[in-house]
Amino acid sequence: MRHLTLGNIADLIGAELIGDASYPVNGLATLASALPHQVSFLANMKYASQLAYSQAGAVILNRDQAKLFAGHCLLLDNPYLGYAKLSQAFAPAFGFKGIDASAQIHSTASIGKEVNLAAGVVIGEGVILGDKVSIGANSVVGSRCVIGSNTSLAANVTLYHDIVVGEACIIHSGAIIGADGFGFAKDGQDWVKISQLGGVTLGDHVEVGAGTSIDRGALDNTIIGHGVKLDNQVQIAHNVELGDYTAVAGCTAIAGSTKLGKHCTIAGACGITGHLTLADGVHVTAMSLVTHSISEAGAYSSGTGLDKNQKWRRNAARFKQLDQMAKRIKQLEFEMNQLQG
Amino acid sequence: MRHLTLGNIADLIGAELIGDASYPVNGLATLASALPHQVSFLANMKYASQLAYSQAGAVILNRDQAKLFAGHCLLLDNPYLGYAKLSQAFAPAFGFKGIDASAQIHSTASIGKEVNLAAGVVIGEGVILGDKVSIGANSVVGSRCVIGSNTSLAANVTLYHDIVVGEACIIHSGAIIGADGFGFAKDGQDWVKISQLGGVTLGDHVEVGAGTSIDRGALDNTIIGHGVKLDNQVQIAHNVELGDYTAVAGCTAIAGSTKLGKHCTIAGACGITGHLTLADGVHVTAMSLVTHSISEAGAYSSGTGLDKNQKWRRNAARFKQLDQMAKRIKQLEFEMNQLQG
Amino acid sequence: MRHLTLGNIADLIGAELIGDASYPVNGLATLASALPHQVSFLANMKYASQLAYSQAGAVILNRDQAKLFAGHCLLLDNPYLGYAKLSQAFAPAFGFKGIDASAQIHSTASIGKEVNLAAGVVIGEGVILGDKVSIGANSVVGSRCVIGSNTSLAANVTLYHDIVVGEACIIHSGAIIGADGFGFAKDGQDWVKISQLGGVTLGDHVEVGAGTSIDRGALDNTIIGHGVKLDNQVQIAHNVELGDYTAVAGCTAIAGSTKLGKHCTIAGACGITGHLTLADGVHVTAMSLVTHSISEAGAYSSGTGLDKNQKWRRNAARFKQLDQMAKRIKQLEFEMNQLQG
Repeated sequence: MRHLTLGNIADLIGAELIGDASYPVNGLATLASALPHQVSFLANMKYASQLAYSQAGAVILNRDQAKLFAGHCLLLDNPYLGYAKLSQAFAPAFGFKGIDASAQIHSTASIGKEVNLAAGVVIGEGVILGDKVSIGANSVVGSRCVIGSNTSLAANVTLYHDIVVGEACIIHSGAIIGADGFGFAKDGQDWVKISQLGGVTLGDHVEVGAGTSIDRGALDNTIIGHGVKLDNQVQIAHNVELGDYTAVAGCTAIAGSTKLGKHCTIAGACGITGHLTLADGVHVTAMSLVTHSISEAGAYSSGTGLDKNQKWRRNAARFKQLDQMAKRIKQLEFEMNQLQG
Repeated sequence: MRHLTLGNIADLIGAELIGDASYPVNGLATLASALPHQVSFLANMKYASQLAYSQAGAVILNRDQAKLFAGHCLLLDNPYLGYAKLSQAFAPAFGFKGIDASAQIHSTASIGKEVNLAAGVVIGEGVILGDKVSIGANSVVGSRCVIGSNTSLAANVTLYHDIVVGEACIIHSGAIIGADGFGFAKDGQDWVKISQLGGVTLGDHVEVGAGTSIDRGALDNTIIGHGVKLDNQVQIAHNVELGDYTAVAGCTAIAGSTKLGKHCTIAGACGITGHLTLADGVHVTAMSLVTHSISEAGAYSSGTGLDKNQKWRRNAARFKQLDQMAKRIKQLEFEMNQLQG
Repeated sequence: MRHLTLGNIADLIGAELIGDASYPVNGLATLASALPHQVSFLANMKYASQLAYSQAGAVILNRDQAKLFAGHCLLLDNPYLGYAKLSQAFAPAFGFKGIDASAQIHSTASIGKEVNLAAGVVIGEGVILGDKVSIGANSVVGSRCVIGSNTSLAANVTLYHDIVVGEACIIHSGAIIGADGFGFAKDGQDWVKISQLGGVTLGDHVEVGAGTSIDRGALDNTIIGHGVKLDNQVQIAHNVELGDYTAVAGCTAIAGSTKLGKHCTIAGACGITGHLTLADGVHVTAMSLVTHSISEAGAYSSGTGLDKNQKWRRNAARFKQLDQMAKRIKQLEFEMNQLQG
């Protein structure tokens, strides 16, 4: 548990403090559950009414809401960003633990300074680990991988051979980087495997969620840009390229050779088919299927809205008659026109 | 292979036996494949005709079907429940094997009685394991986790730090509990990570499928109720709450802070967006997207039915004209009304 | 890096060489990036214009395109198949490394010749491994599994007990074979677990993608045919049967007891509900939901096309009125008919 004063926090997040700079706090909580020695924040106006009742020792909020809270206020134009910065101060510090005796390190690997390798970690031939790299228990790093400084892999991560990971990345458990892309040529009835000879490169400050898979390229590399954020169980196929700062939510699948621009946000459970190009700033809503390239920034969707099953069944049955319905409307318009002379 | 008499089985599942209580059996099989020393069951009437030909030594069925089977009958109102109970009797017994020499246990961990820790297991600082906990090979349990009695983790499971698992839970391989929720604040073009300071709590009798991920909360905990059943590759985002006995089928994704009631069933490949509330007893059909809260129990759906691709293409093209079609119908109705005077 | 002459390659892929059989090459690349000592290929006519500029030392192409390339030509009717075969020649050779000292092998296991077991591998009781089986670091093979010759498991693979894997299979990291199927019987409000007593059998030449899960059968086995190819994060439920050479793309989920025929291709992110039968040669397009059996080969689809979110919202709202719209069209037709006398 870390102890900070409100003065420390104002400095840390760049806020203007209204109140006692020496007031001590030791954590962060929601308005509803915060205690007197915790800080809270107001980022969504629908919770503004909670300010009157919150026991928080201090609240990060913008100037307009400050009058609603009787306690210490930390004023910021973007309280949500202030909360994000402060959350990092209260995150558990992992610290330097060194290399566990059970870690298996190939004699040709190069290990930086202050590297943590937990129990059961396996480091392959020719691997290069930067300074302050931290690798969780039972993770496996294949031959000739290069991992930049300050990057951490959680437990049970798998990197195949020849993967390049940038600096200050976070790779969560169960993530698998560099498995073979799904490539086969038909030979009569049989499938002939296309060996996947490319690699994967991740930029700096990339986060890869739990159980997410990023396949190696067929010939060229699969490329994940700087600052890209991937949620859990995302599937990135071979030779996909994700532009800088693009974010992809859970369970979305992106098929082979598709290129996304920068600053895209793809919501959860989407599918994007192969060999497409999406412009910068494309936003796709949840569970949409993208089947064509998109050249214009903006929000895109597919699918139908949720309904009671009984009502939905009737409408879904009509969907199969849509083309016929359109023709019947056209015919009615023709006949109407004739009647009207 | 376990040996039981029909008398044992009648007691075990609470059935009325018509036949020889000393008749020995050693397994359970479908009507079509059962041999004379195996038990079968009839739970779905479409298989009733197989009773005449089945070689099963005994069949669990209800009183009305007993006349259709010439062999021993185990009478129950709910034969499917009887089958479930009997299946447990024939499951392989894992038994007490103790702690493998290669397991790595932190000196501060507290280990209950008759605990199994397989090869390569890693147990972190301050972990508490109840009695008869069983953990499969190469699983990793992070610092300060608490695991209740009789809970088993299969091989290659990952628990991050500060996770609480109840009693008699089953957690399958590749499950990942406590990875960071997907939270970032925008700072210009960049994403600032929101450290995820909450934990995850699982009730008793929870089952977590292979490759399923349950993220830790941002501030408060992600909460999985008692008796919840999660299939494979389910994604539970940060601060989700699942009510008791709710079941979620494979590949469904539930976004952040959404609360499901008790006794809900969510079919496979669904998406549920964030910050929603679903009442008790909500049922969602396969691959539906839930984008609004649901206050009434019942079945809900979205999507369209399957069709031949050629026909589907025509109808899907018309979907994009639906609003225009509706306006044309309205215009026709107006003109019709005028013509009719 | 492997060195071959164009003569070697012509023999290997069965091509007719136009050029110098002694010309040496050491790799494979796309037309755009190939260097003079690399081979490329032309399989998609939209890249034909790159032939004029490519620096490739040789190109695999069909006779009609040979005139467009000034360098060495490897003539084949199916250049994509030639590329596939050649890719295998340039794949990294893993070779025989033997059994790592940290691998844990049960005393009753039977290990074939030239088997590779990497660091941290755990091999259970009664396991049988064929010749030239290769198992990556920290993978776990449960009791009584049988793995055929020349099959390789990558790192962090999990096989539960009693799984049969054929010859020359490739199983990628994070794949989980043999976890419990999702089976429960209702007992009032509670779920009673149905112990999953069946196994899983995989034919020869099967590939299983990263993070893919294949559940064990409830009573009979889950069956994966010969030459089946499964991409990443596919979910195969208990008692599914996949016919020979069927291929399933990433993130598709197939529910319990469904049988697919031979030579089916299921695109990514599809759902197939339980207890269905699909004929041989069924093709399902991306993110479709299959809810009924299919008796006729061909392509099938569901869903709606992608649109700008603003336009989509209007059309999706109308979807909920479709049944009413159809009735209004019918009413208009009736009234039109009356007016027309």
